[in-house]
Amino acid sequence: MMAAAAAAAPAPAALIRGRYAARLLVLHRRARNPKTPPCRSPASLHPLPRSPPSPPPLIPNAASSRWRWRWRWRLFCSGTLAADADAAPAEGGEGVREFRRRLRIADVKGGASEGLEWLGKELAIRGWVRTCRVQSSVTFIEVNDGSCLSNMQCVMTPDAEGHDQVELGTVTTGASVLVEGVVVSSQGAKQKVELKVARLVMIGKCDPLTYPIQKKRASREFLRSIAHLRPRTNTFGSVTRVRNALAYATHKFFQENGFVWISSPIITASDCEGAGEQFCVTTLMSNAHESNDCPISTIPTTKDGKVDWSQDFFGKPAFLTVSGQLNAETYASSLSDVYTFGPTFRAENSNTSRHLAEFWMIEPELAFADLNDDMACATAYLQYVVKFVLENCKEDMDFFNTWIEKGIIDRLNNVAEKNFVQLTYSDAIELLLRAKRKFDFPVKWGLDLQSEHERYITEIAFGGRPVIIRDYPKEIKAFYMRQNDDGKTVAAMDLLVPRVGELIGGSQREERLDYLEARLDELNLNKENYWWYLDLRRFGSVPHAGFGLGFERLVQFATGIENIRDAIPFPRTPGSAEF
Amino acid sequence: MMAAAAAAAPAPAALIRGRYAARLLVLHRRARNPKTPPCRSPASLHPLPRSPPSPPPLIPNAASSRWRWRWRWRLFCSGTLAADADAAPAEGGEGVREFRRRLRIADVKGGASEGLEWLGKELAIRGWVRTCRVQSSVTFIEVNDGSCLSNMQCVMTPDAEGHDQVELGTVTTGASVLVEGVVVSSQGAKQKVELKVARLVMIGKCDPLTYPIQKKRASREFLRSIAHLRPRTNTFGSVTRVRNALAYATHKFFQENGFVWISSPIITASDCEGAGEQFCVTTLMSNAHESNDCPISTIPTTKDGKVDWSQDFFGKPAFLTVSGQLNAETYASSLSDVYTFGPTFRAENSNTSRHLAEFWMIEPELAFADLNDDMACATAYLQYVVKFVLENCKEDMDFFNTWIEKGIIDRLNNVAEKNFVQLTYSDAIELLLRAKRKFDFPVKWGLDLQSEHERYITEIAFGGRPVIIRDYPKEIKAFYMRQNDDGKTVAAMDLLVPRVGELIGGSQREERLDYLEARLDELNLNKENYWWYLDLRRFGSVPHAGFGLGFERLVQFATGIENIRDAIPFPRTPGSAEF
Repeated sequence: MMAAAAAAAPAPAALIRGRYAARLLVLHRRARNPKTPPCRSPASLHPLPRSPPSPPPLIPNAASSRWRWRWRWRLFCSGTLAADADAAPAEGGEGVREFRRRLRIADVKGGASEGLEWLGKELAIRGWVRTCRVQSSVTFIEVNDGSCLSNMQCVMTPDAEGHDQVELGTVTTGASVLVEGVVVSSQGAKQKVELKVARLVMIGKCDPLTYPIQKKRASREFLRSIAHLRPRTNTFGSVTRVRNALAYATHKFFQENGFVWISSPIITASDCEGAGEQFCVTTLMSNAHESNDCPISTIPTTKDGKVDWSQDFFGKPAFLTVSGQLNAETYASSLSDVYTFGPTFRAENSNTSRHLAEFWMIEPELAFADLNDDMACATAYLQYVVKFVLENCKEDMDFFNTWIEKGIIDRLNNVAEKNFVQLTYSDAIELLLRAKRKFDFPVKWGLDLQSEHERYITEIAFGGRPVIIRDYPKEIKAFYMRQNDDGKTVAAMDLLVPRVGELIGGSQREERLDYLEARLDELNLNKENYWWYLDLRRFGSVPHAGFGLGFERLVQFATGIENIRDAIPFPRTPGSAEF
Repeated sequence: MMAAAAAAAPAPAALIRGRYAARLLVLHRRARNPKTPPCRSPASLHPLPRSPPSPPPLIPNAASSRWRWRWRWRLFCSGTLAADADAAPAEGGEGVREFRRRLRIADVKGGASEGLEWLGKELAIRGWVRTCRVQSSVTFIEVNDGSCLSNMQCVMTPDAEGHDQVELGTVTTGASVLVEGVVVSSQGAKQKVELKVARLVMIGKCDPLTYPIQKKRASREFLRSIAHLRPRTNTFGSVTRVRNALAYATHKFFQENGFVWISSPIITASDCEGAGEQFCVTTLMSNAHESNDCPISTIPTTKDGKVDWSQDFFGKPAFLTVSGQLNAETYASSLSDVYTFGPTFRAENSNTSRHLAEFWMIEPELAFADLNDDMACATAYLQYVVKFVLENCKEDMDFFNTWIEKGIIDRLNNVAEKNFVQLTYSDAIELLLRAKRKFDFPVKWGLDLQSEHERYITEIAFGGRPVIIRDYPKEIKAFYMRQNDDGKTVAAMDLLVPRVGELIGGSQREERLDYLEARLDELNLNKENYWWYLDLRRFGSVPHAGFGLGFERLVQFATGIENIRDAIPFPRTPGSAEF
């Protein structure tokens, strides 16, 4: 570690003045005719030009060791350029350098030619060593910078600068390095290009005896205990990139269709939300954090021995939200089409591979819309994000297809291309009753569908096609769903996909004040708590509909990852909120 | 309300079969040669074609009243098209209709010609009545659908269908309506086009006696008490659209520059975060929600009368996060460049116009980066989002410029175009000491800069230019900031903008294990709590840097809104967590 500290030693950055920095750091210059072929990596998420840079001088014409030193420091960092000379203001301040997108391995290897257009170019790569194979005359170092699944294979001969690090044995898995060299075509079958190393600089060492991520495959369970390091593995790197692509595609889809993003509140003292499985948010136990000790006597109470909520931060009990839908409805009732994308919470004590205490939800709400619009939107959304991932995360998807779930690409292509099926709940019950199959759970009109039923419908009955079931009995659905004419069902829909089951649930909302109030009465809910929700029906009510989607379920669906705890960076589950 | 309920009465949507729906609903068809001129409204956020539709028949050739009925229902809703005939599967299900972007007022009036290319076209608008002026021979109804600030001026003569609603006096502020008609050029000075009404349908009435949003201007404070209705005002509609544009621009900037979005955890039991001002998250008081009563005796305690955390959901005290930075650093140490965009919390009991208990933060983290890269990134980011808003929210910005803060557009243009200034904290102190001005707070090396100092520097000393102050004394900054060579300062930076003061705070992180451990010792922090954070320095440490930005401050900065409670849909402050 001391060596790492020395290598990355302080060099007062302010001393690196403009014009020198500019000369040193132009490693990645915009080409005049950028070619942007469709490419096979996450790089296409990033439309900046990715053409080969003009060859820069690897070693600056500065003889003094002081210059060398600063130059080394700067090389560890991104390629910011110096500010223009005229940027310096009169008052003694200095300009700020120009921000440049840093050259990444995905920029080099992610193009259609897999890097061949970079042949002969000199460049610098910064990343972490995945493997180092020392052979008699040549050393192969695989370097990864997280920009894509692919490593840059760096081929080093003993004459290269920094080969002493190889000899010292410090170039180990997990170490961070700067590697400079020339792009050459590779003899290996796994890649078209590799880097012939001119110089290697050790940035941060990694003790192989204590580094928990070794070549041998670690269990997912063990990796969860080192959630701060697991993104350095292939699987979690790929999951993170696909998760990112799904999030960005979500924003793109809704923004391109005129929806406005709304941040629904996280903390709520509103009594509208479902009781029971909510976390309480309080400062009454706030002494706890320093010592973890909270004498019960420090919690303020009323005369009759109850917690005195009036002394709490919000003056009453407050909870973590379970859904932003009701809030989204308020904005849909003025901005027409909106969506939320934020965290939601369940204090459900279920230790399963499908439940998290903290998860992200996407909840669009469409004004002037009915259930058909809602189903159409859910379908279009799902197909859009699936296509986006298939097009932009090809390498990661190939990885999942090989190592996580064989056939996942076909499965996703099916979703992206096939027409979705809709049928009513009543028809679904008929279909299940006709099925020549014994189910564990009973099939009867009025009972909710179980996972086995949903999978039968989408996997068997409709041969792998996504299916939307609609018009559920009102008794098994939420109070706000719009009652159908039959008086027995509501305009609800669940979107089922093969293998995962329910991915999206939505409904048309009851926009008729009298129907909604009657339903609240039926369910013995206190109308006064819903005053603002009812106001939306009092003042310019409109037909509207929406749906909800658990983002981590979508990540599971798109990656094949079996346990939902591996679909979010830092999972929160009963007994576990580390990091 | 009953009339509204009747008008939006049930029509089993499943009955509206494909080909009819297709014929009825093609109100917004893709043009063959879509013109997409740069436009002056939020519509340019949405790159789908916005060209005039082909004129559809306003009244279908269906004589039966049943058809009329269904047709009215569908007209309230979006223009989803019927599924292709061949979409119907064998199993008895039906296809799902195609999702179509709904025609919005911004689509019509947001183009460069302000709607002139729509002249002579027939179209339908759905929205809420802002005003209705009845004159002797003609009625002017202003309709807004939230897609832009502009209303559609609808001009109605007594021969138009639905004029009885005008006569009955139901076309009041806040009512929701469907208006069909022909686009004609407007005589008024405020708009180039208006809608000559052929038909008006009342969707949801709005009782003018009880509707809280009337023409006379309501106070911001009052509007906060009806946060579910305030987006129906011009100010909050505009703030919401600009907030949305800032959020989308944030994602675009980072995605285009190769950053990966990370969801940092909301609930954390990690002891790394600053103590004191955190909310506790617990299920030990979970009986509370149903009755609001929580007898203190129901909270489990240990033998010595302390709260028994082992029985809590996470098995130990858990809190709402105050920052995702440390978590983001773990991902930057594997994926290189990442950013968070999520809610964070402070249980700070300060009732000011600048503080929220719940607010959204943007926290990028750059690997292989130093403070110069960090400043360059922060500058580029801020200029990008400001430019995006100026280009995409012109109408809303004009509104703010006129009604909220005169000169805001110039102020933002300054930020977008001027070079930012950087100077060290020490130089800033010198500058303040030389200033011919009496400050309320003392100016002395080692003391933090106060708002008056920051505003003097950016507004007076540098004449309205954004200023970055860097290299602060280590005593007034956080433990994780990288120590400079002088041993006294750290590589921290604050970005100040005129009028608002600090908008962004960032630093290079201490990547040297020995320095970081020494600093933790100095501050009497328990190193064991930081095991995973220190691991990043043990295993392949790299120089890295990042910054944090309070999103609501950015919204204030870009809109001129004075109180931060008006920059977020549902503000949470001491004593207030409604809705």
